[in-house]
Amino acid sequence: MAPRSRQACIALDELDPLAPRRPLFDLPPGVIYLDGNSLGALTHAAERRVQQTLRAEWGADLIKSWNTHDWIEFPARLGARIAPLLGAAPDEVTVCDSTSVNLFKIAAAAARMRGQRHRIVSERGNFPTDPYLLQGLTALVPGLELVCVDRDRLAQAIDEHTFLVVLTHVHYATAEMFDLAAVTAQVQAKGARILWDLSHSVGAVPLDLAAARADFAVGCTYKYLNGGPGAPAFMYVRRDLQADLQPVLSGWLGHARPFDFVDEYLPATGMARHRCGTPPILAFAALEGALSVFEGLDMAELRAKSLALMELFVEIVESFGQDFCIALASPRDAAQRGSHVSFAHPDGYSLMQQLIARGIIGDFRAPNLLRFGFTPLYLRYVDVWDAAQGLREELERWRKFGPAAVVRQSVT
Amino acid sequence: MAPRSRQACIALDELDPLAPRRPLFDLPPGVIYLDGNSLGALTHAAERRVQQTLRAEWGADLIKSWNTHDWIEFPARLGARIAPLLGAAPDEVTVCDSTSVNLFKIAAAAARMRGQRHRIVSERGNFPTDPYLLQGLTALVPGLELVCVDRDRLAQAIDEHTFLVVLTHVHYATAEMFDLAAVTAQVQAKGARILWDLSHSVGAVPLDLAAARADFAVGCTYKYLNGGPGAPAFMYVRRDLQADLQPVLSGWLGHARPFDFVDEYLPATGMARHRCGTPPILAFAALEGALSVFEGLDMAELRAKSLALMELFVEIVESFGQDFCIALASPRDAAQRGSHVSFAHPDGYSLMQQLIARGIIGDFRAPNLLRFGFTPLYLRYVDVWDAAQGLREELERWRKFGPAAVVRQSVT
Repeated sequence: MAPRSRQACIALDELDPLAPRRPLFDLPPGVIYLDGNSLGALTHAAERRVQQTLRAEWGADLIKSWNTHDWIEFPARLGARIAPLLGAAPDEVTVCDSTSVNLFKIAAAAARMRGQRHRIVSERGNFPTDPYLLQGLTALVPGLELVCVDRDRLAQAIDEHTFLVVLTHVHYATAEMFDLAAVTAQVQAKGARILWDLSHSVGAVPLDLAAARADFAVGCTYKYLNGGPGAPAFMYVRRDLQADLQPVLSGWLGHARPFDFVDEYLPATGMARHRCGTPPILAFAALEGALSVFEGLDMAELRAKSLALMELFVEIVESFGQDFCIALASPRDAAQRGSHVSFAHPDGYSLMQQLIARGIIGDFRAPNLLRFGFTPLYLRYVDVWDAAQGLREELERWRKFGPAAVVRQSVT
Repeated sequence: MAPRSRQACIALDELDPLAPRRPLFDLPPGVIYLDGNSLGALTHAAERRVQQTLRAEWGADLIKSWNTHDWIEFPARLGARIAPLLGAAPDEVTVCDSTSVNLFKIAAAAARMRGQRHRIVSERGNFPTDPYLLQGLTALVPGLELVCVDRDRLAQAIDEHTFLVVLTHVHYATAEMFDLAAVTAQVQAKGARILWDLSHSVGAVPLDLAAARADFAVGCTYKYLNGGPGAPAFMYVRRDLQADLQPVLSGWLGHARPFDFVDEYLPATGMARHRCGTPPILAFAALEGALSVFEGLDMAELRAKSLALMELFVEIVESFGQDFCIALASPRDAAQRGSHVSFAHPDGYSLMQQLIARGIIGDFRAPNLLRFGFTPLYLRYVDVWDAAQGLREELERWRKFGPAAVVRQSVT
């Protein structure tokens, strides 16, 4: 049961075991930030770590920093830091490139070891970079095929021709969450491998790739991990698959001995082979700082608060929703969701602009979704209460003055 | 004729028209930095720009920064800033990903438009990320072939089966420079296209891709452009080829309407289609700051100083070289070189460690090369004089105490 008053929310905040982590963030005053599922907030640690990298590393030690500050092992070091959040071993994760590039890297490498199978299956309405990149791959390699189907037809689309299934664990728009272990088992039962996109999951919901024996995963670090805009992404390959997964984007930093500068590519062992070009160190530094706020965190505790924040918001909005043409577009059962919630509204775009103008920051997703992210490390119950009341006020204005008024105001 | 005394070098520095740019850099005291060809030095502008992005953009404006600070057009904005250094039009260049990834992107996209041709030609001993990535591409796509030959056999290797030639304009080890216009014409006369890797050229030698009618180019911004460790790379596609070059790494930010989130990929027009995932904004910010030191720069003036600095160094080292087993491994004619110079020495690795220990920072490239980069924006003639004298002292120590002594000292 969600709290029924602003005062009750304040009381919950005082008891919140995650409350000590909020001061680790550099949050702007007067803002309720419900878009940490798109771009996580700045941490003091990230800021300090970037400063240090600028002056004490790049500035002072220049090229020597690759060794003296161990820039060269940044991909493995940050991979090992993220691994516990995935339920993976430290040597199964590396940080490199973007989620999009990493997704291509794994799908292309999987295509090299596909045997007689030729089909990749994915979901219609998945976050589009995933199908776009798979379209690029299948256009390049003769004989490869991509099949995208609606979620309820996935099971029948995966067959003896399928070598890879690519799914996003938590849907970017609706927040609907797959049962990671069950789907992994279904895919593997058909002799295919699964590549999970965990962009909307990592740092938001507990993950256990090891228990699921998931094959591959990629994901983003600039959402719930607060790594900074366009922060480098991660990739995961289950240990027993690593030796057979030959990189297609076989860059020099993934070579077994990059500084031998020989003509023939020889992949490094383990995840190191998936490094490609030189990594953006300033971006790595920001991520390293940001990850410190997860130290000692109990993901079950974080999930519990996430569920409570979402329930509070959904209960309030549902209490007035029918009067204002606003309807939940995410699963009603919070256990079926990631850590964001979407509501459909015919003037969703304009309403979100109004909310943003008053400091309640969510985002809009076409065609009509108001999307709100709930980040338990820096959001308070009282913030969620206030955001819901703000939404109510904007909906009241919309009902009183009509859609045209809202649209006009949003343009100014 | 190079100056013959330290005093003469100081006099040259006082007359140097580029001298006012040196204070734009945050150079560590007591260091002569001859490795700007590997990692350029920190500029005050890059530091300020990163600070601003951290606090005033990411920190304060959070997700809104994509619009209010125009992060979304960063790739085009920085591409347009780099274009004049390439002799390209602003809409022919974009900044994204790493040099390695961009090289793959262009080679793979070129493979989609190859017609009946099936061969890629490159040079043996090229910087290895280039052949490694081409090996990955040809391993993925049945029927594609990669042929790497020595430089003197390139002309005969390029034939009617060749659709793409991939060459690095300035060689990473020897600094030997291709005649960009002449080689481009040779390649195109065979009906093939050329992809130039300009990593060791851009910001160091004048380039005119337009005059050469070069097809494609990629390059690195963390060397002479001082963009920061692992700074994002650039790619160039000649305007009349842009519409036909279909991305293979077709990510959502390269879509014509990324925020429509539709299932089918439709490439954006121009260079925007080669954006893939979300770009690392902190790294872009550093590069934007760094590029400000090139404003109003006459590249001919920069090249003239580069040649003069190299000539000074080479003349001094040659004056004592025969006594110390050190030999120039770069072309003797400076016009045939980029902006670095390599010398072979049997104990090259240990000697470079000794030099670095005394604050003269170059680097070592296997098997036996001491490599020195000359960056006219922040190097003085007197620095080069002092570096050459330091090298002489280390060579004298080597001759006196023998190779073993040098090796032992370098370990401590």
